[in-house]
Amino acid sequence: MSDFFKIEYKDGLMRVGKIITDNGVLETPNFIPVATLGSIKALDSVSVLNLGIQAIFSNTYHLHLQPGEDVIYHLGGLHKFMNYKGVILTDSGGFQAFSLGQALIDRVGKIANIFPNSSKRNIDLLSNRLSKLSNNKEKLALMNEDGIVFKSHLDGKIFKLTPENSIEIQLKLGSDILLTLDECTSPLASYEYTKESTFRSFYWTERSFKYFVQNKDNYKEYRRFLYGIVQGGYYYDLRKWSLEKILSLDFDGYAIGGSLGRSKEDLYEILNWLSFPDDKPRHLLGIGTINEIFIAIEHGIDTFDCIIPTRYARTGTVFVKYEDNYKNNFTLDITASIYKGKDIKKYDLPIDENCNCYTCRNYSVAYLNHLFNANEISAMTLLTIHNLYFYNELLKKIRLSIINKSYEKFKKDFFN
Amino acid sequence: MSDFFKIEYKDGLMRVGKIITDNGVLETPNFIPVATLGSIKALDSVSVLNLGIQAIFSNTYHLHLQPGEDVIYHLGGLHKFMNYKGVILTDSGGFQAFSLGQALIDRVGKIANIFPNSSKRNIDLLSNRLSKLSNNKEKLALMNEDGIVFKSHLDGKIFKLTPENSIEIQLKLGSDILLTLDECTSPLASYEYTKESTFRSFYWTERSFKYFVQNKDNYKEYRRFLYGIVQGGYYYDLRKWSLEKILSLDFDGYAIGGSLGRSKEDLYEILNWLSFPDDKPRHLLGIGTINEIFIAIEHGIDTFDCIIPTRYARTGTVFVKYEDNYKNNFTLDITASIYKGKDIKKYDLPIDENCNCYTCRNYSVAYLNHLFNANEISAMTLLTIHNLYFYNELLKKIRLSIINKSYEKFKKDFFN
Repeated sequence: MSDFFKIEYKDGLMRVGKIITDNGVLETPNFIPVATLGSIKALDSVSVLNLGIQAIFSNTYHLHLQPGEDVIYHLGGLHKFMNYKGVILTDSGGFQAFSLGQALIDRVGKIANIFPNSSKRNIDLLSNRLSKLSNNKEKLALMNEDGIVFKSHLDGKIFKLTPENSIEIQLKLGSDILLTLDECTSPLASYEYTKESTFRSFYWTERSFKYFVQNKDNYKEYRRFLYGIVQGGYYYDLRKWSLEKILSLDFDGYAIGGSLGRSKEDLYEILNWLSFPDDKPRHLLGIGTINEIFIAIEHGIDTFDCIIPTRYARTGTVFVKYEDNYKNNFTLDITASIYKGKDIKKYDLPIDENCNCYTCRNYSVAYLNHLFNANEISAMTLLTIHNLYFYNELLKKIRLSIINKSYEKFKKDFFN
Repeated sequence: MSDFFKIEYKDGLMRVGKIITDNGVLETPNFIPVATLGSIKALDSVSVLNLGIQAIFSNTYHLHLQPGEDVIYHLGGLHKFMNYKGVILTDSGGFQAFSLGQALIDRVGKIANIFPNSSKRNIDLLSNRLSKLSNNKEKLALMNEDGIVFKSHLDGKIFKLTPENSIEIQLKLGSDILLTLDECTSPLASYEYTKESTFRSFYWTERSFKYFVQNKDNYKEYRRFLYGIVQGGYYYDLRKWSLEKILSLDFDGYAIGGSLGRSKEDLYEILNWLSFPDDKPRHLLGIGTINEIFIAIEHGIDTFDCIIPTRYARTGTVFVKYEDNYKNNFTLDITASIYKGKDIKKYDLPIDENCNCYTCRNYSVAYLNHLFNANEISAMTLLTIHNLYFYNELLKKIRLSIINKSYEKFKKDFFN
């Protein structure tokens, strides 16, 4: 085992361990909330750390645009810039090639349509095409073998992301754990498109890996680690091919990206296809719901990132385990019109009487409902605190149950 | 002296004392931030108290509409609803008759024009008129001797505010210090209009006073106190008339409302006209800037409320005392494009290196600038914390300087 990752307990495929970086230790399995622009939305960095959040996940595409990696580099890197004393992961920007290209699906049916063979080998051709597009519901990302060309969602400026400069940006941002450039394929992508994309993603992966190995020592203040990403969508042979290729390079850890199917069962299946060496951490990208987290952990996943708890909070949805709400993914809508009738006092209680988060210790559902419906932004902050606390506590309990060999019982109780 | 207000030190007109309610003690002179809808915007109640904010100022008009005084009453009153363990003042709703009638000024030149004599004595006539108005840039408030009719800015519903039900709403909200219903006159109002308004406001004041005396004992959980409001705009004889009338009733304290002129000099003059008995607290409504606060305190004012520190924070303006920014009312624009050029590191400092607020202890100007420009709402929270801390510390230092007989020196140093 490396100094980076230590497994301390195992139970079947499940493992409890630690990812050890120079900026902090991340107990695994764990959930990593998203800090898109160098900030967990609605929460300041010290509050994030005080909540027990050991790692955050930031976005290269967004930080490159705002405030720019050079600004952050000159100010001492993301940890210092944010004043966050924990582990920071960054994505490669490849996800935005999907999310900002997603609009295309609605227009032409398949992302594949935007990659005519003629433009495959020259990224500048794409730049020219993209700069001619208007801002109105047009493509904001195109890609070919060279890399991805974006049209900034902020000001329309064109910029390129290549396997090399994605790593350079991430090194400058100063994240502890970097990801190689890849394309996140759509659940709607055909086998042919996904195959082409998976090959291209691995071509990018090799270039990212090479650039990282050659350049990481230019940034010596603390250790940097690189994960390779398994792609292949919901296609067995592509996933297997991608896995084999990724494992052929000496990454510090592995990520699973792209489409993970369209249901809980699909996710089960894809994870069943993939078998990783024991001694390196495994990250599942963009997951997830409470259900997905249990599934992932059962398949030996160590970490996962997702916007769910924070974005749900900002739309007034909180996580709480009531006896009967597991079908509703353990959510409660705080914005509901609960003041009608004579039942007001029923809501003079915290979201969860057994929850020890700051929000539940101090405020009632009635007051949170009022704040949210009155458009007070403190409502978003308070609900974000609750949701992150809920996720963090759940993961703590899952780790403990694995250590105590009581995971199955814990899970059964949780879903009852 | 009453049990409600104790003066502990005096220096000329200036005094240092305590307003003592059953929900908390307010050291005076002091600044009271505005919690329009039962919440200081961008900050939760416990954080407000932890900042050392001893009193907040909420709005009857807004809380009546959302969530309604009955909801708050059934949930134990505003202190319990918000979980704020300090002094709460509420206005009467009369200010919104001005602010929601203000649009009229732009349309017809003078508020006076909307009060034809024929409708003076019957509030229902106003209701009928108002309900016929469309929502688009129309009048949202009309008034006559009976009271004020509002068209809700939320859903267009018509409701009445009378001298009596304004007090009833405030009693149900559960504020410690209530205000009588009055009209806040515009700085543009003529002598004739202001005269009519001042007479009407005192007619309302008598009715509010009577209702309060007869009904406050229906709400016995803790003591309620009532302030009468001196009106009269920027007109000497009207201010004198109003003062004499207000002093003829046995209020727990006095407020100064309405137009306070258009300049620092006007404010000086109006305050010079008014002489109050020593033993009751004096509140200046809707003030103010740093300059205005010094002026008010020098004229023996004990408390004042204003949206300035909180609203400024939400637009990216922070208070800080630099050597050269007193002309700029001690403000700094955190949103400025400071990242241009090679001076980035210059902004790797807190807003004020000598400030001990949470924001300055943890975050740089560069990061706050990034958060604000990236539309992260945590920026609003962090800047609100700083601005309220700045105001609170300033008032602490002013009180101390009055106690130490060093006010003039403190003021001179502060403005240099």
